[in-house]
Amino acid sequence: MASRVIEQHMVTVVRDGVATRRPDTLAAEDPMEIRVNGDAVSVTMRTPGNDFELALGFCLTEGIVDDAADVASIRYCLDDVQRYNVVDVRLRDSSPVSPSLRRNVYTTSSCGLCGTASIEAVRKRVPDVSHDPLTVRPELLATLPERLRGAQRVFDRTGGLHAAALFDADGDLLCVREDVGRHNAVDKLIGWAASDRRLPLGGHVLMVSGRIAFEIAQKALVAGVPMLAAVSAPSSLAVALAESAGMTLVGFLRGSSMNVYTHPGRVLSE
Amino acid sequence: MASRVIEQHMVTVVRDGVATRRPDTLAAEDPMEIRVNGDAVSVTMRTPGNDFELALGFCLTEGIVDDAADVASIRYCLDDVQRYNVVDVRLRDSSPVSPSLRRNVYTTSSCGLCGTASIEAVRKRVPDVSHDPLTVRPELLATLPERLRGAQRVFDRTGGLHAAALFDADGDLLCVREDVGRHNAVDKLIGWAASDRRLPLGGHVLMVSGRIAFEIAQKALVAGVPMLAAVSAPSSLAVALAESAGMTLVGFLRGSSMNVYTHPGRVLSE
Repeated sequence: MASRVIEQHMVTVVRDGVATRRPDTLAAEDPMEIRVNGDAVSVTMRTPGNDFELALGFCLTEGIVDDAADVASIRYCLDDVQRYNVVDVRLRDSSPVSPSLRRNVYTTSSCGLCGTASIEAVRKRVPDVSHDPLTVRPELLATLPERLRGAQRVFDRTGGLHAAALFDADGDLLCVREDVGRHNAVDKLIGWAASDRRLPLGGHVLMVSGRIAFEIAQKALVAGVPMLAAVSAPSSLAVALAESAGMTLVGFLRGSSMNVYTHPGRVLSE
Repeated sequence: MASRVIEQHMVTVVRDGVATRRPDTLAAEDPMEIRVNGDAVSVTMRTPGNDFELALGFCLTEGIVDDAADVASIRYCLDDVQRYNVVDVRLRDSSPVSPSLRRNVYTTSSCGLCGTASIEAVRKRVPDVSHDPLTVRPELLATLPERLRGAQRVFDRTGGLHAAALFDADGDLLCVREDVGRHNAVDKLIGWAASDRRLPLGGHVLMVSGRIAFEIAQKALVAGVPMLAAVSAPSSLAVALAESAGMTLVGFLRGSSMNVYTHPGRVLSE
């Protein structure tokens, strides 16, 4: 099946020393290989579903293509035994993909090997969003986590998925994607936005369910997002990248409380 | 600096509409390249510190070496400009590393591309722990999350790190490691155990702060751990691997409540 998002499994539940046996719902996880013009560029453990969005988002956020229009087609490799776990991306330019882009861990490597070099390399291929005029009142930001959670259909059943959600400046929820992998949830969301011809995402807020590491900030910036928010903490390198590229980074968004790590003017201008 | 675990950054804190500006502590994140016999096998975004344990644990859990005794030396590449972000592992056998092992995303690829094939491939290189006689009372398990949290020195300051902890059958905490990457925290812990000649970890409980995905279960099994516990949910593939290899998998370990997904006899035998 292409979209096996959850699986059932018997579980022994212990509550105050009393054990009972019942069926439980788990978040599904399966490897997926992304091929570009026939070359394998990534294998990721992902939650099945929205696989083409994941492939498109990955190609965009990892710099394999600069524009969704560079992609000619995305399909499952139906000649492969694992037909729904191999996605074949064909570019309009059919030349082989640069070896340095073949695996996502190495897109970091090509950045150099310290935080400063990583930021400089990423800055070369992401827009500067300093001048994005988005402003969002803190009271509106405070409502986003609950609405993200409300839209997480799978999370409610499994407690086991990361989520990424896109909001507009009025706080309207445009799209939610979930995955066992935090980066996959973001790639699926950006792949959706690209399919829907919404890139770049100026004027939007991207919210993630967990923490903000460097690669999440990088992916948000590739999509042109001026504000990235999370329920938990950002890493030092995510903050440094956001600072450098003009993106507002909000962490620990819980109730009416939040930490604005960079470019706070978008939250507090009024 | 080799061990810059945290960084200071100014943050705007908004509480009930009131903004204040104060310094905040962030979890540090920096890329680290692992070279084996001179070949780059991985670049990971990690929290600096315990880098040699991370490299050793990675080499063991990703199957680059079967035994810590196969490693002749681990050192920083001090000739490199990024001297504390490149770790050079020299094996007793100085031949080049197999290309299929050069990058960790591809160790999964070589497993085949569905959950069943992944499990079969991992099972070939991990011990079966079905006969490990460990038993742990639920009341003792219930105390582990708080003790893990108590030992998370960095988490208390940043809220931004994953942790992995090793407990013995009496519930004594032997070691805690933290990292922005969940898999890195586990690799650091297993690298520590290897350095301390404690492998395999029969009779021990490995606890992680977040969720249990397939790769975490895989790494625990490589180390011979018979019981893996977490505060949050496991994925379907992690449960399937634990079932197959005889490992007890405990999720949602919170207060006196927990879900035992596989091999519950170790928790409930008494």
